[in-house]
Formats: sequence, structure tokens, C-alpha cells
Amino acid sequence: MLDRLLPVDAFPARRVTEAMRYAALGQGKRLRPFLVVESAALFGVPRAQALRTGAALECVHCYSLVHDDLPAMDDDDLRRGKPTAHKAFDEATAILAGDALLTHAFEILADEATHPDAAVRVALISKLARAAGVAGMVGGQMLDIEAETANAAELAHIGLIQSLKTGALFRYACEAGAILGGADPAPLIRYAQKIGLAFQIADDILDVESTPEALGKATQKDKAMGKATFVDLLGMDEAKRRAAALVDEAVESLSVYGEKARVLDEAARFIVERRK
Amino acid sequence: MLDRLLPVDAFPARRVTEAMRYAALGQGKRLRPFLVVESAALFGVPRAQALRTGAALECVHCYSLVHDDLPAMDDDDLRRGKPTAHKAFDEATAILAGDALLTHAFEILADEATHPDAAVRVALISKLARAAGVAGMVGGQMLDIEAETANAAELAHIGLIQSLKTGALFRYACEAGAILGGADPAPLIRYAQKIGLAFQIADDILDVESTPEALGKATQKDKAMGKATFVDLLGMDEAKRRAAALVDEAVESLSVYGEKARVLDEAARFIVERRK
Repeated sequence: MLDRLLPVDAFPARRVTEAMRYAALGQGKRLRPFLVVESAALFGVPRAQALRTGAALECVHCYSLVHDDLPAMDDDDLRRGKPTAHKAFDEATAILAGDALLTHAFEILADEATHPDAAVRVALISKLARAAGVAGMVGGQMLDIEAETANAAELAHIGLIQSLKTGALFRYACEAGAILGGADPAPLIRYAQKIGLAFQIADDILDVESTPEALGKATQKDKAMGKATFVDLLGMDEAKRRAAALVDEAVESLSVYGEKARVLDEAARFIVERRK
Repeated sequence: MLDRLLPVDAFPARRVTEAMRYAALGQGKRLRPFLVVESAALFGVPRAQALRTGAALECVHCYSLVHDDLPAMDDDDLRRGKPTAHKAFDEATAILAGDALLTHAFEILADEATHPDAAVRVALISKLARAAGVAGMVGGQMLDIEAETANAAELAHIGLIQSLKTGALFRYACEAGAILGGADPAPLIRYAQKIGLAFQIADDILDVESTPEALGKATQKDKAMGKATFVDLLGMDEAKRRAAALVDEAVESLSVYGEKARVLDEAARFIVERRK
């Protein structure tokens, strides 16, 4: 679906469309679109609508990776086992490709193929803009960059950064399913908050226990930059206990849906048990 | 209006909201919001709706300036007589502030205060995403960067770059007025195409005839980078003739509105007669 929704190389500005496709297609786990599709499935939403919404969300996720990897930001050379976009192309193209992916997400959502009701499309757009903006992902990335210098080694602070930087898109993924289905989003929002935090703790654990080869990106960068992680603050054992408890709480949040939520239950377990 | 619509410094990620406000408030000509407001006024659209739409458009315009000024792009130190965002803050903050301004534009448009009808808001969002994306501003900027090396000194090519890079937002400004008013956008789109091209020719003329002090930004950069301008290709006299003819054609496009279009007629003249 995402492949089909991204612009193709025929356009005059071919280089930027190539970079968009490079950054968005390929090795990603596609966890966020998966959550949209499975959340939407709880309410019998047509699969094409959920896939379009998931594709828009993946565009936003990939844009954030392209910009976060830039030399002026986290300065990463490797992402998903491939050179980062500014390494494979150049910095200007990477900045523009990120900009274009963010813009394209809203174009996908605005199209009536995403949902026949314009009010639903507007709700999806409004929530995505909030999740991606200063009160979400951008705000989290700004705090994360400042944390390098502030050395703000407090659990509350890295919890805040996490909830903004990665939590906002997890929440959006699950909430979008309920919006598409015209359903109460509260149980899915609770689920998303638990798995979002579990995901970040698992990331910090993998950063210590895995290798760059297995992860497809550099490890131990936070330590080198003096940034605190959940593992630093909780210790490895407590971090693992906390992640496991969050998964149980996430599963509990979905009990209202009974058997229908089985795939989302498994997704919560995958998030802490994954090896990359 | 824009001041009121931008996030304030109270938020944890204060640095990025400060940079957003720095980039978006202050010395701008506000030409694009002005065009939205005056186009909408032709159809009796409530002023608050037009101002919100104009503010969203200005966010997109200012985001593009912040990113275009970055060292990896046009590498400019001066904008509107002030240090560019990455000079006043730093590169990471400027990238994030641009991202946040782009995102915020869609949040403004999605809010029901922009128009009570969700279908109208979706139309505004869809058109803005197209104007800003690879088939508009981003595509134009990519071609513009490539032109530095390609040295593609053809009128058709710089005309294409112009129509994408600056023309798309001019067109959006005027079309948005018609969308808000539920009116036929065709005359305003013709008007916008004429003044968009006239604006770019006037920019190239000012680049030769004005000073960095008067313009508030560096001059003669295109020449130094080997990029062709309309003045190079047409000669100064013909460039001025062409700009004046475009203004006449723009005014003619609006004849269907009679006296009501007087302010837009004057705006077309201002665009080629401005000194900065």
C-alpha cells in the first residue's frame, strides 16, 4: 500500500521522490501501520481505509527518522542496516525528502479513499498533526537534544521525552483505528500508552544487549552522549520487570474486546521480546 | 492572528516554540495571507476564517524559508534583515522549528474555527499538501538545488522551477479564498499564476538593482552559484516589460468581479513595484 501511495520517479524532481521511497520502503518493522490495521479490525473497518491511514502514519514516522538522523541532529550513518538518507543521497535531499514525507501523510489522509466521511478524515488529520507537532514528536526530539547538554537524568524527564517522542505516534496508531470505526478510543489509548513506554524501555535494553549488526543501527550512542536511559536509571533487571508489567497492563486494557484483541495482545508481547 | 495561533513558550520544549515564533513573526510582507483574505472577501467569507487559512499558509511559507536557508541548502545567514533561524538558534532547532511550522499549518486548518464544514477544511488541507509537496514547493526546491550543478539555463526550466517553488503557494492563497466561499476558483487561479510569475521576475530584478540592506537578505547569490535568472535570460528591459504585461493580464483575469477586485488589482501592481 505505501509503495503504491508514494510518488514515483517520473516526476521532474526525481531525486527527492527516490529519496522518499528509499527512506519509507524496505526494512521497517511497520509496527505503527500494523497497530492501525489491527485496532481498526476490532470495529470492522474496511482494510483499505486502515492501510491508507497506516501508510500516512508510516510516512510521518519515516520523516522523523530521516530528520533525526541528520548530522545536525543525532548524526547517524546507519538505519535499518542501510546508509541513512543523507548518506545515500545528500543532506539537502534528505531534508527535502523528510519534508515531503510529512506533507504527503496529510495528502493521503485528506483523500476520500481514506474514509467517505470528511469529518472522520479531518479528525485523523487533526490528531496526526498534534501527535507530530511540538506537543508530540517534535517537542520530544527537541527535549531529547537538549538532554544531551542538560544531562537531565531523571526518570520523569526521560519518561516525558519518551511519551512525546515515540508515545505520541503509538497512541495515534491505536486511536486512529477507533476513529475510523466511530468507536470509543479510551481502551486503545490506554493500551497504546503502555506499549509505547514498553517499546522505549525495550529499545534501551536492546541498545545494551544487542549489536549494531543485529539492530541495523549504531548502539550505545546515548551513553556516549551522556544521555540517561531507562536501563541506567532502573538497572537492567528492574527495566525488564517494568517492561513485562507494562505488557500485562496493556493486555488488560483490551479485555473489553475479548478474543478479538488477541493479535494486539501478541503485538504487545512482541514489542518487548523482539531482537531488533 | 498568527501570533495567537502559534504555540507559546510555556511548553516544556520551549526552544523550538521560540524558534517557530522567531521564524514566523516579525518582518514578513504577509503577502500570501493578504491574498487569502482579499480573495475570500470577494465572496463575503467571514474574516476570521480567511485569517486562519492565511496563517496556516504563512506557517508553510515560513517553514520553507527556514529549511531553504539551512547550510545544506542555500546556506543563508540573513533573512528579512535578521539572522536566519539556524544562526539565531542552531541547525537542529531550525530543522525542528520548520518541521513544526509545517505540521502546525495542518492543525490550524483541521480546526472547525477555520470553517464549519469539514468537507471545506479537508479541501483546504488537500490543496495545501499538494502545493507544499513534491509536485509543488518541495519539488521546486529540489530542482532549484539541482540547477546549481545542471546549469540548466533555459527559460522553460526556470519557469518550471518558479511555478513549483513560489507559484504553488500563490495559487493556493487565491484558490483558498474561493474554496472558503464555495465559489468557482478559475479566475483567481489565472490571476495567481500571473502574479506568481511576475513576483519571481520582480525578485530577479530586485536581486540586480537593490542592495542587501534594502532587501534584508543577500543579493546576487544566483549569479555566484551559476544559476540562471529571468534577467539573465530575458535581459533587464524585457524582464521589466514581461513583468508589467503579467500584471495587466492578472488584473484582466479578475474583471469578472468588477470593482470588488480593486484591492487585488493593486496587489498585483505592488508585486512588481515593491522595493524589497
